[in-house]
Amino acid sequence: MSSIQDVAALAKVSTATASRALSRPEMVADSTRARVMKAAQQLGYQPNVLARSLRQRETRTIGLIVADILNPFHALLAKGVQDTADAHGYVTFLFNSDEQPDKEARAIETLRGHLPQGLIIVPTSGTREHLKSLPHLPVVELDRVSGNPQALTVTVDNLGGAAAATAHLIELGHRRIGMIVGQLDISTSVERHAGYRSALEAAGLAYDPALVRLGQHREDDGHRAALELLSLPIPERPTALFVGNNEMTVGAVLAARELGLRIPEDLSIVGFDDSRWAQTMSPPLTVISQPAYSLGAHACEQLLAQLARERPGPVPRVQLPTELIIRESTGPPPVPLLPLLLSSS
Amino acid sequence: MSSIQDVAALAKVSTATASRALSRPEMVADSTRARVMKAAQQLGYQPNVLARSLRQRETRTIGLIVADILNPFHALLAKGVQDTADAHGYVTFLFNSDEQPDKEARAIETLRGHLPQGLIIVPTSGTREHLKSLPHLPVVELDRVSGNPQALTVTVDNLGGAAAATAHLIELGHRRIGMIVGQLDISTSVERHAGYRSALEAAGLAYDPALVRLGQHREDDGHRAALELLSLPIPERPTALFVGNNEMTVGAVLAARELGLRIPEDLSIVGFDDSRWAQTMSPPLTVISQPAYSLGAHACEQLLAQLARERPGPVPRVQLPTELIIRESTGPPPVPLLPLLLSSS
Repeated sequence: MSSIQDVAALAKVSTATASRALSRPEMVADSTRARVMKAAQQLGYQPNVLARSLRQRETRTIGLIVADILNPFHALLAKGVQDTADAHGYVTFLFNSDEQPDKEARAIETLRGHLPQGLIIVPTSGTREHLKSLPHLPVVELDRVSGNPQALTVTVDNLGGAAAATAHLIELGHRRIGMIVGQLDISTSVERHAGYRSALEAAGLAYDPALVRLGQHREDDGHRAALELLSLPIPERPTALFVGNNEMTVGAVLAARELGLRIPEDLSIVGFDDSRWAQTMSPPLTVISQPAYSLGAHACEQLLAQLARERPGPVPRVQLPTELIIRESTGPPPVPLLPLLLSSS
Repeated sequence: MSSIQDVAALAKVSTATASRALSRPEMVADSTRARVMKAAQQLGYQPNVLARSLRQRETRTIGLIVADILNPFHALLAKGVQDTADAHGYVTFLFNSDEQPDKEARAIETLRGHLPQGLIIVPTSGTREHLKSLPHLPVVELDRVSGNPQALTVTVDNLGGAAAATAHLIELGHRRIGMIVGQLDISTSVERHAGYRSALEAAGLAYDPALVRLGQHREDDGHRAALELLSLPIPERPTALFVGNNEMTVGAVLAARELGLRIPEDLSIVGFDDSRWAQTMSPPLTVISQPAYSLGAHACEQLLAQLARERPGPVPRVQLPTELIIRESTGPPPVPLLPLLLSSS
């Protein structure tokens, strides 16, 4: 790669003159400028935005770290952020932590060196610690919160959504409702679990830890957890599952199919987060939908508003609503055979 | 944001000494180093990777521009690139051109200033022109080719895949097979259309332009094009559709449902590219599957191999195979009513 020194040598001017000819052409003679431009073109010299940004301490870029780019929810978050940044003339550097704190740390380290003006992050369990290396960078935590008191947060009403999902199953007559929960060091998992529990308690149903399984947000986790729950002997086996994210939900649906359970006749399922496959699958899935694109857009707007402030103001915490969309994967529980026989005797 | 000058002033040393204490601590006295480190911490000074990379002309970063981050195929490409880069100690700057040449131009302009060592790009129609601003940067074109003769390319056998999809429909007995094609200035669209046409001709079937509709790769395009084709009067209406990408396929499936057409009894559909919804939908979709993750991984390996070479070698063109996966969305064409009546008279 050619340097400014190479350009200067070819144009037979000093490095300072070559630099000035490219960055402040009005300060050099026309003939000099023409010579430098020609040399730069011949050498394929790339005028260096970074060198300029080092001087100006401004790059008009923001960093974005999502946790799982293969999860369509995260892709939509990214799209919402990016479109909004774009509309305001900012460029988004997108990273994927892959739900792994060490990859997140590397992404943050890389961003540090590239001088973004702010960071939007879907936190992992390592985020709170990692952000300590960036005490002066404006940060918006998106979808999840790390517990960092200085971060702006843009999230959804996870507790309310989970309670609505669980209440829907209770209204249909279910009494043994299983839940597949995400990582307990991630705020959304904790809140959705709390919502599930609160709806059970509001209905006077006991919370049974044997009906709750943990996963790490991926399809395989949902598959394994559902197989465990659905292999419990009747009548311990749940008649309905509430699954804590979309990736785990697809695993749970496939597990039910493998076991030959009909949805919703043998098993009702509600997923958290809507998706294309949830709409096109058979039967279409009842879900708690989240405004993913809007979440991303709000996060970007909050960040840009923060950047526009002269001095730090109050830290906004934006919470968007969720919505229960009832489709065909939920219905009344199967009629238990044994009680029927007993009642008819 | 604090500068090295601020750190130097607080530590009461020269800027050069402050810089040396942070970048080459072995060259300064322990007491000086301690004073500079303390000042840097107090000020939240961020040691600047970019300043270092400007000196060293090396950043260990690669740029990646995909064309539609909401398309799971592109998300998988990105994951394949990123995992491979990560395994080799490289960081990936990910951008989404959103199928828009002007957004791609902005991403390239941004990358130029951030000194990546190479670029992997899923081209749009603008790529060939845009890459002229980076004549010395190693580039791998991924999934699509722009026609740039210097670019390494990593693609799939689009022609063979499209021919296999079309031949499958012909073998089932279809004679009126429609195709929904992507943008004709994108190489994958041209190749898939050519494969469709070659299979028709190999079977002695005439190519009928009235059965071919164009789209721009998105769900809406597939929906509109399918509505047009399926609204043709019988017997002109196609009994089968081959759709040129996954996003347009979902649109075509939804259009068929809206028109009350049963799949595959009334209409057979083959999509190009497999996906989760294609597998979970009812009926599961017959597709040409592509090794998306491997494509991304290969592209990254080709780029890193290129970076390791002392001087430019031959330009590799990697082509991976596709696979026809027969599920339940394809079957024999509906028996035409009119000929039946005639034959029974």
